[in-house]
Parts: sequence; C-alpha cells; structure tokens
Amino acid sequence: MTFSPLFWPIHLKSKTIYILDETQLPYRVSYIKVKDYQGACKAIKEMKTRAVGQVLLVFYTFLLVLEQNRKSKSLDKILQRVAKAINASRPTLPFKVLTDMVLGWQVQGAPLEKCILGFLEKLKNYRIAQAQEAASLVKNGDVILTHCNISGLMPLIGQFCREQKKDISFYVTETRPYLQGARLSSWELNQQNFSVTIITDNMVAQVMSEGKIDKVIVGADNLAQNGDIANKIGTYQIAILAQHFKVPFYVLCPPRSNAKSGSEIKIEIRPEKELLNFQGRCIAPKGVKAYYPAFDVTPKELITGHIHLGRE
Amino acid sequence: MTFSPLFWPIHLKSKTIYILDETQLPYRVSYIKVKDYQGACKAIKEMKTRAVGQVLLVFYTFLLVLEQNRKSKSLDKILQRVAKAINASRPTLPFKVLTDMVLGWQVQGAPLEKCILGFLEKLKNYRIAQAQEAASLVKNGDVILTHCNISGLMPLIGQFCREQKKDISFYVTETRPYLQGARLSSWELNQQNFSVTIITDNMVAQVMSEGKIDKVIVGADNLAQNGDIANKIGTYQIAILAQHFKVPFYVLCPPRSNAKSGSEIKIEIRPEKELLNFQGRCIAPKGVKAYYPAFDVTPKELITGHIHLGRE
Repeated sequence: MTFSPLFWPIHLKSKTIYILDETQLPYRVSYIKVKDYQGACKAIKEMKTRAVGQVLLVFYTFLLVLEQNRKSKSLDKILQRVAKAINASRPTLPFKVLTDMVLGWQVQGAPLEKCILGFLEKLKNYRIAQAQEAASLVKNGDVILTHCNISGLMPLIGQFCREQKKDISFYVTETRPYLQGARLSSWELNQQNFSVTIITDNMVAQVMSEGKIDKVIVGADNLAQNGDIANKIGTYQIAILAQHFKVPFYVLCPPRSNAKSGSEIKIEIRPEKELLNFQGRCIAPKGVKAYYPAFDVTPKELITGHIHLGRE
Repeated sequence: MTFSPLFWPIHLKSKTIYILDETQLPYRVSYIKVKDYQGACKAIKEMKTRAVGQVLLVFYTFLLVLEQNRKSKSLDKILQRVAKAINASRPTLPFKVLTDMVLGWQVQGAPLEKCILGFLEKLKNYRIAQAQEAASLVKNGDVILTHCNISGLMPLIGQFCREQKKDISFYVTETRPYLQGARLSSWELNQQNFSVTIITDNMVAQVMSEGKIDKVIVGADNLAQNGDIANKIGTYQIAILAQHFKVPFYVLCPPRSNAKSGSEIKIEIRPEKELLNFQGRCIAPKGVKAYYPAFDVTPKELITGHIHLGRE
C-alpha cells in the first residue's frame, strides 16, 4: 500500500508537531510546525488540517503536552485546560469524545502515552480495514463520485480495487468554498494514477442523469447514535440526488458520537468572508451577505450503507 | 422602474455595437465595442454577454450589418452568412429561431430594420410584463432563491413587489464556474437595495431544510414544446431539491424553441479549463480532467409554473 500524505497528515518529532498544511495543496506539500496546544487549536480553527488530521492532532497535542510536562505536579489541570481549548475550536466535530477518552485514561491512572500510541495504531489499522470493506462494495468498471475529502481513504479504496483487478475511476465535486474535492481528493487520486474528473457542485444531478455515476462514497465528521451523519456541506443534497437517481450512497463513518440523532449535531457557521473570497479575491459586490454552514446532516434513510470504523 | 444594466446590455450607436462585458462585473461596468458580426460571435462564444444579452446581440448584429450593407446587391447572401455564424456560436441556445425570424422577414420583403426594432420594443414590454406576472406570485415576506442570472428581471420583480408593499429578500447561488449568481445577480439586486445572501451551489438542500426559502425563481435558455426547459447547469438539481422540500419552483421562460422535449436540446460542453481555472489560477493539479456541461434540462414535472414571455 502507498499512503496518501493526507492519510496521516500529522507527525510528532522532537517536541514539535508537524501539520500538513492542506490550504497549500495541491501547489505545495508543506508542514506547519507547532510547539504548543494553542498553536494546534489555531491550526484547527483555520482549517490548516481537517477531518482525520484534526483527530490525530488532538492526540498528538496531548502527547506533546505530556512530553513538555512530564514532571509537573499539576498535569491533571494542564490536560483539562488542553481538552477545553480543543473542544472549543470547532463546534460540529465531536472533539469531546476524544478528549474525554484521554482524560478518562488519566483519571484511571493508565499509562497515558502508551494508551494514546496504542489508540493511534488501532485507528490506523481500522482505517485500512474500512477502505478494504468499501472496496469490497465496488464492482469492476464502477465510477465513484466523492465529495470533499476523506483523508487518504479514497486512494486506499482504489488500491484495494486494483489488487482485486477491478478497474475503477472517480468523479470529484470541487466542494466549494474550500475546494477540498478539487484541491485534495483529485490530487491524492491523481498522484496514484487514478482517472479523476472534477465537476462543480451544481453538476451532480446532470452527471447522475447521464448515468455516469455508479456509486457515491463520502466520509463523515460525525455519526449520531441513530445513524444520521454530519459531513461537509453539500453531502445532504448529493444524498437526496442519489436517491432520486437510484445511485447507492455509502458513508465511511467515524466512531459514533454522543448525539442521539442528527438534530442534536450543532452545525458550524463559518465567517462569510471565507465564501465571498475565492483565491484571495472578493467575488461579490460590497454589501452582499453570505451564509456559510460548514456542514449538513444527512438522515440515515438516505444512506445505503454505513461503513464503520472497526467492528461495531 | 429602474432597469439593471443587465436588463438591456447591448446598444447600437454610430455603426458600433456596445456589449456590456459581464466578465468584468461586479468590479467594473464596461462595454466592449464591436464593429462586425465576427466580433459579435466572438463575444457570444467567450460569454462576454449571455442570456438576453445574446438574444439582443443577434438582432443588433443584423441591424449593424444592414447599416453597413444598405446598398449591397448581395444582401441576402450576407444575411445568410451572418445567420450561419451566429447559429454556430453556442449549441444549447436556440439562435436559429431568431436568425430564421430575421431571414424570414427579408424573404417576405418586409422592412427589415423596422421589423427588428419593432420586435425589440415588443420584447422589452413582454419582459416587463413577465416580471410583473412573477411578482404577482410572490407573497409578503417571501424569500426567493435564484440561480445564475435572469438579465435584470429579478430586480424588476423586486420593484413590482415593492410597489405592492410586499417585503421580499433573496438568496442567490454563486453558480460556479462562471459565478453569475455571485457576480451578476447579487450585484444588480444589491444596486437596488434588496437584501441578498449568497450561498455556494452545494448549500441549497441545507438552506431549504432550514425553511429559509419560500420560492425558487429561475430563468431558462430554452423552452421545449412540451414544457421542459434548459437552463444554466445546476438548475435541474435545484428543481429536484425544491420538490423534495416542497418549495414551489417557477421558471421565467423564453419563447418556445423547436425542440419537442428536453431530450432534443443539445447540451453545450464547454472547455475544461474554464472550470479548472479561476481568475487566472489553476485550482486543480495537472493531469486531472474536468467535465463542464454548461446547461442542464429540467423536466416539466418539476416545474410548479412556467411564466411565459408574452401571452401564449
């Protein structure tokens, strides 16, 4: 297996966290260096990293703080402060599940560093297995539509398909306003020589009506107890369109959050300037507003299959 | 009534056609000067003007050619050559209906200049009446979602609503890749002090699910005999979503074309570089393809009401 840099975009070396700067892709593969938890939270807020990168960053931040405060008597307090700052960084993502896990290990007196490293190793293996399971659903000749970016899982699915002699290709929605599809998904798939075609977000019905799409596979940022998911804005309408055109719609899920259903997931509203500016230039006249919900909730009824992380 | 510059974006003065350069909006209101039919066709191909601007440009091009060749013995041949060039400029738009009309007048020996000017005057009045009819469907407090740009009709609808003491506001999809919504519709509505909120094309389901949208009103580039319409790419999926969320979906129509149904309308596929490049910068990695159907067809079943141009 060849891993996309997006599969594991965070590294810790010599008391420094290296964060793959996803805002620079596909132009440059560069890493931001962070030396404290405040820097990590800032990178999350500014979407320098996203999705799995944010999850990894939570754990690497705790590892960094542990290294820095190995002998501190107030380690408990420090860890709580770090957890609080992380939880406050972006509302839709269930960071609390992760930070509670770490604080729980600490309360139980478990060896924290070992617990975290063990968790990360398990996460890696679970993600590979998840890609393998998704690949088993794909048929030879399938064209897969994906939205946003699933942190290196899509090229892995492609590689498993290749191993199984299944020839597949991809359509990617550009995913405005942040262009994760055009910048990240198309890049990592193209790096591994898969056929990738970008469409704008308003072309989904057209390409489905032309019979160009066999399956939709997307990720999720939040999986509620009842099976509803929250994912990047635009996922919901692709699910409705997939149902309309009878295209199967699969979701690669994170662990379940505490939300009972999608209605309990708080949707993050991001600054309008992020929508009104495109590559540094304002695209709209002064005085015009914008509305930027960063995520939407897809109800479980629209999901053909959940592909879970680890055995549920 | 105050007319948006987009309502009548083409003018003819001293053997020169002035074309409002829509690619420069909202930054600059500037006009391209054209002195022959080849220049007019080039402006159509390069989408310097669109929608009604293209229709007007067809007629003003014939007026210009008439002025230039008033005494020519081969006027018939010249007009046929001009018609052929216009028809070939963009496939989805029913230019042939317009050019056949002009050639027909010539064959009948009608006073061509007078016929064209009369037609343009009628078109103007019909368009105003069309906006008035649309306004009659709008209720006080309505929030209207529109896609792309309907050449000055939306601010007119707003003005008729104001006259009728109906307070309305607008959501506009940005309409990638050309951004007609963000650049043109939001601009002309904002110029007349209407509340406008831009969303990206992938936020439609979300804003509808939040109950933010009362009605969808869009234009059409082609109306088939059976009531199917072709309009800017993205219209079709908005219509599907409107049906899903039970939001009425209205279309301001052009005259019927010769197409029996939507399946007879040829969809223009535009160069992929127009999708992959934004303001001079490529947004995707090298080697990645793009697919850019410029229009899609919305079947009549998804249309709550057709608002026709003139009484049918």
